[in-house]
Amino acid sequence: MTLGDHVLALDIGGTKLAAGVVGRTGDVRSFVRTPTKVEEGPETTVKRLLDLGRDALAEAGRTAGEVAAVGIGCGGPLDPVTGRVQGPPGLPGWDDVPIVDLVEAAYGRLAFLENDATAAVLGEYHYGRWGGVRHMLYLTVSTGVGGGAILDGRLYRGAAGNGGEFGHVIIDWNGRLCGCGQRGCIEAYASGTSIARRADEALAGGEASSLREAPVVTAETVSVHAGRGDPLARRLWDETTAALGRALAVMINVVEPQLVVLGGGVTRAGDALLLPVRRAALSQAMRPAGAAGRVELSVHGDTVGVVGAAASAFLHLDDSTGAST
Amino acid sequence: MTLGDHVLALDIGGTKLAAGVVGRTGDVRSFVRTPTKVEEGPETTVKRLLDLGRDALAEAGRTAGEVAAVGIGCGGPLDPVTGRVQGPPGLPGWDDVPIVDLVEAAYGRLAFLENDATAAVLGEYHYGRWGGVRHMLYLTVSTGVGGGAILDGRLYRGAAGNGGEFGHVIIDWNGRLCGCGQRGCIEAYASGTSIARRADEALAGGEASSLREAPVVTAETVSVHAGRGDPLARRLWDETTAALGRALAVMINVVEPQLVVLGGGVTRAGDALLLPVRRAALSQAMRPAGAAGRVELSVHGDTVGVVGAAASAFLHLDDSTGAST
Repeated sequence: MTLGDHVLALDIGGTKLAAGVVGRTGDVRSFVRTPTKVEEGPETTVKRLLDLGRDALAEAGRTAGEVAAVGIGCGGPLDPVTGRVQGPPGLPGWDDVPIVDLVEAAYGRLAFLENDATAAVLGEYHYGRWGGVRHMLYLTVSTGVGGGAILDGRLYRGAAGNGGEFGHVIIDWNGRLCGCGQRGCIEAYASGTSIARRADEALAGGEASSLREAPVVTAETVSVHAGRGDPLARRLWDETTAALGRALAVMINVVEPQLVVLGGGVTRAGDALLLPVRRAALSQAMRPAGAAGRVELSVHGDTVGVVGAAASAFLHLDDSTGAST
Repeated sequence: MTLGDHVLALDIGGTKLAAGVVGRTGDVRSFVRTPTKVEEGPETTVKRLLDLGRDALAEAGRTAGEVAAVGIGCGGPLDPVTGRVQGPPGLPGWDDVPIVDLVEAAYGRLAFLENDATAAVLGEYHYGRWGGVRHMLYLTVSTGVGGGAILDGRLYRGAAGNGGEFGHVIIDWNGRLCGCGQRGCIEAYASGTSIARRADEALAGGEASSLREAPVVTAETVSVHAGRGDPLARRLWDETTAALGRALAVMINVVEPQLVVLGGGVTRAGDALLLPVRRAALSQAMRPAGAAGRVELSVHGDTVGVVGAAASAFLHLDDSTGAST
């Protein structure tokens, strides 16, 4: 075992924090997580994140000195160059957090910050075993909706490192108000937050539904009750998958990838999400016959964030040493 | 003057055919055009196109033997490798036309076929004098709506050479039926065809408007009458620019380019198109402060098609000889 074999990966989400030690082939040696508690503010959260990283190291039987680097994934906007988180909508108060400096000081290792969805597409591309795919989109459907792209075998970050704002693909001009201020963004339909909010609105409107029996209504509750045949849950879920399918069709039309991978908490619904979304996306995209567009779920499940952050860290390490993967 | 200095460029559009002799710096030495007359079918149209190419050569004082190659731009779908046009919606009957073979036979020069919007983005990138831009989208707003992309300094064609179906970015889930079978595509609002159709529908509905005085209502008529204050024309034009701006915001969110260039017949409206579209696009896109997205009109005006086809031909010539531009 050499030093370059493993990295510590930290995943900062609006709902959960995760950490893991990940090897060069995407093998997850340890994985721990804890709720984010956004109300406690960045200082306390960063402290808990650093502790969580130590737990992940301990679980993998390593010290910080025994990993090559630390990869950090977080929702944007952020600046990967200065290593600062710059006010992601899902992390109130994180307006200018020098997370790379804090992590490097805590562990004494080089750290790299990457947009979490950018990191995730790297993880899918390098470790997803998708065959010879060279054009891939990754869409995270989670607290929010974001994404990343591999185009022609290379990570595409956009002009200023913030490409892939797939959550703000507008599908309905006159649709629901989104947190970004626009109407009809896919995030306003398909994020976990908005699925739960739409359920709450319908319930507040007095509609009969088995969802009333649930202590808390989440995206998962909606998908489960939809599967059991509850008409309100079914309507909400159908609207969610139809919206996602339509947004994917738009992205497919713009980019023409060979593969779209879906990940994030909402994809825990599995085939109940994948099958209708795939059908809607591929039937509505303008694809010439023979171009085999594929829509699949991430193989990494809940670890997609740490696997992505690890892939990003390895890429940075290899770039700086001139090695190739 | 060497042989490699100039190419003959042919631009096959649903509304007009154009031809020109174009130099290596994008300089248009001759430019001729004629209506397409789609009803006459591909055989007659190809014959007229070849004659038009001879006119362009004559106007530039050259023979076919004195150009390095022939570049051909046409609406997709088409196959740049086999050189066949495969049934573009704007060219009824062009289901499998071996245009490269026909052109090579007619002129005795190598010919290259490229999607017209792909060609146009090459032309803008190489000859548009946009400074150090490396991430650029080009949107043609013409008989239909299409586009092309330069990402990280390279032409992006998508997995199967049909990326950039920007006309089928869906902005309104419940919106107008598009020719592609979906609802709410930007093409259903902003193409010249759909602007005219929406005007016709409103007039057929009995609405008062100065548009009734026009012998034929085109996109240009609508923009002119909107500028004169006709309420119906103004409403149609505002809807057009709002739709285009919204679609651009979506594309900017997906790709994060430094520059979006608009070209095609509808952009003859100039600032009446550009200013509201730019405002709508940049105010609705999720851009972090400081990332200077720009929306501009093509500097090539009506010659954008031949300049693009020429750029594509030069790129092919250089690729095959190993030279660099």
